[in-house]
Amino acid sequence: MGIFNVELKKVVDDSYEIETGFDLKTKLVQDIKNGLVGNIKKFAIITDSIVKDLYANDIYKEITENGYSADLFVFEAGEKSKVRKTKEVIEDAMLEKGYKRDCCVIAVGGGVVTDLAGFIAGTFGRGVPFINYATTLLAAADASVGGKTAVDTPLATNLIGLFNQPEKVYIDIATWKTLPDEQVYSGMAETIKHACLASNEFFVYLNEHMEEILNIDKEACVHIAEENCKIKYNVVMKDERESGLREVLNLGHTVGRAIETVSEYELLHGQAVAIGLVAEVKLSYKLGYMTQEECDEVIKLLKKAHLPTEIPEYIDREVLVKKLYTDKKVRDGKLRFVIQRGIGAIVEFEEGVFATPISEDVAREIIMSM
Amino acid sequence: MGIFNVELKKVVDDSYEIETGFDLKTKLVQDIKNGLVGNIKKFAIITDSIVKDLYANDIYKEITENGYSADLFVFEAGEKSKVRKTKEVIEDAMLEKGYKRDCCVIAVGGGVVTDLAGFIAGTFGRGVPFINYATTLLAAADASVGGKTAVDTPLATNLIGLFNQPEKVYIDIATWKTLPDEQVYSGMAETIKHACLASNEFFVYLNEHMEEILNIDKEACVHIAEENCKIKYNVVMKDERESGLREVLNLGHTVGRAIETVSEYELLHGQAVAIGLVAEVKLSYKLGYMTQEECDEVIKLLKKAHLPTEIPEYIDREVLVKKLYTDKKVRDGKLRFVIQRGIGAIVEFEEGVFATPISEDVAREIIMSM
Repeated sequence: MGIFNVELKKVVDDSYEIETGFDLKTKLVQDIKNGLVGNIKKFAIITDSIVKDLYANDIYKEITENGYSADLFVFEAGEKSKVRKTKEVIEDAMLEKGYKRDCCVIAVGGGVVTDLAGFIAGTFGRGVPFINYATTLLAAADASVGGKTAVDTPLATNLIGLFNQPEKVYIDIATWKTLPDEQVYSGMAETIKHACLASNEFFVYLNEHMEEILNIDKEACVHIAEENCKIKYNVVMKDERESGLREVLNLGHTVGRAIETVSEYELLHGQAVAIGLVAEVKLSYKLGYMTQEECDEVIKLLKKAHLPTEIPEYIDREVLVKKLYTDKKVRDGKLRFVIQRGIGAIVEFEEGVFATPISEDVAREIIMSM
Repeated sequence: MGIFNVELKKVVDDSYEIETGFDLKTKLVQDIKNGLVGNIKKFAIITDSIVKDLYANDIYKEITENGYSADLFVFEAGEKSKVRKTKEVIEDAMLEKGYKRDCCVIAVGGGVVTDLAGFIAGTFGRGVPFINYATTLLAAADASVGGKTAVDTPLATNLIGLFNQPEKVYIDIATWKTLPDEQVYSGMAETIKHACLASNEFFVYLNEHMEEILNIDKEACVHIAEENCKIKYNVVMKDERESGLREVLNLGHTVGRAIETVSEYELLHGQAVAIGLVAEVKLSYKLGYMTQEECDEVIKLLKKAHLPTEIPEYIDREVLVKKLYTDKKVRDGKLRFVIQRGIGAIVEFEEGVFATPISEDVAREIIMSM
């Protein structure tokens, strides 16, 4: 009968800064004073039960002592909290405390906090600004560029969420010193992944400086934080909606994500990704894209970072194979893997296609061999 | 230590068509065949328990008979279902059935369905496309332009959600014939609101054609569907993020939303908005922006559409006053109202400011007088 055209073409500028440094909380408040989030005076600081006492309390004090209104919203630390229920509880707590659309969310913590808080900010009042204050290597490597936020569900990890860009990211290396060793190791997995997919030079650097990094040497840590941002940014800016190229960041994640879920989050994300990277280099070798030596080098570097390189005994291999089908790269019911070429590059199967279908039999064979 | 700039400036085109007509399901499938949503072959049809048998089943058949894969996801009809739990149940059902990011959501129903399904589409796999097939006057008036999607929470309506634009909106007037009278009346409230805020001419038209409209006369219905789109679009295109001008669409909603919640959804959305419009014209009169005659005209037109114009006896007035503070227009703890000027215009209090602070005492006085 009639067509009405809704024209909604516009220029969107989601640009933001990532600041790397030591003890950035004074800088954060200074930025807020200088208008980082406009005239907003009310801040919801979202953090977990561990980070609360380590830094979030201090940030809360710094903000309130400077005349702003703020509240801490704390959930139990761990990937198990990255679920819709936690989102709901925090939303209700914010509403209870009178938060409206004129607020800003500050995520203080690791990847779980930034994923969850970014998602909360994205749907609270249909979107309020948020700031990422990353306190872990993993958050610095994984969550600071790309705008991906999400929660897990019983059937899949990270499938319910949003693309939502922060107003600014702070990577505070001072906070890394207080991380349990296991968390530092875990954070190295995404860093090694970045080297594998984009830079042989960075891979060599990691090999040569792993000890300093694990001891949180300032210079080495700033270098890897910046390299991580650079590599991820180069991928993400070319493909914000994860239509093609961005899938390269999924290197090691096909098996990694599945094993993380099957382990019921006994494995930290980085540990699961490390195992996933090993599965992937084995597959890459099988497909002729890596030499045995290159595979061994990757496995050696993962071990140097104290990361697991074998599937733990308690994981049921068949359950794991079945779980692979919950991966978001699955198309038309077929498993798809990102494959690296040597060290520092990714195979482009056809123009713009960076993941290739792999039969269940081949995937099972790799998994059974680990 | 170092600043890394993430540049994310880009042109976004969220334009879409609204098609108004009779029995549009064949047109829907034809559009899909012609690439409306690219190569997507899998459709999640989200609907409610009433609309399922009336139209969604037919749309399901039409789609599957044309070689596409589809499933129906049905929730219990009513505003009470527009909650996070329903979103979760549908997401899990979609995951259970193997839905990934390569799917499209089709919302078939009224405002509750389109609000909920649009929100689900916006966060499923971090966003999949969705199509609105609006089957009620209210959905046509309210949900087809603006991209607002949301769920209600115990503490506030519509505060958790997203701005998410559909790929296309179908307004199928054939479906209006099957609506219960109460739903048709309810749908008129947003239409009358649009006339109040933007067009005296449209207000006169409604006054003269109310009987035909309520009898679902084709010509009259197409006219009001198109006028609704036009008025809303003119506001929304100027202010997609609801920063200023768009608040005019909130006319009557300050009290309306609150009363809808306090009634525990005994009142339909449109009925609540009608009462809210009466509160607002009384306030407008009190502030000197409307004459007594103009107020009476608005109340008369609402009555002509069989809409309530008084606060029901069972509503606790003090609870209602308190509930006003959950309104999203509240700033710095102060109630804010949109005020109409005569019939067909809105008061602009200062440049770009269309809502004005109102003291609790004045709000209470108006509410007590109804």
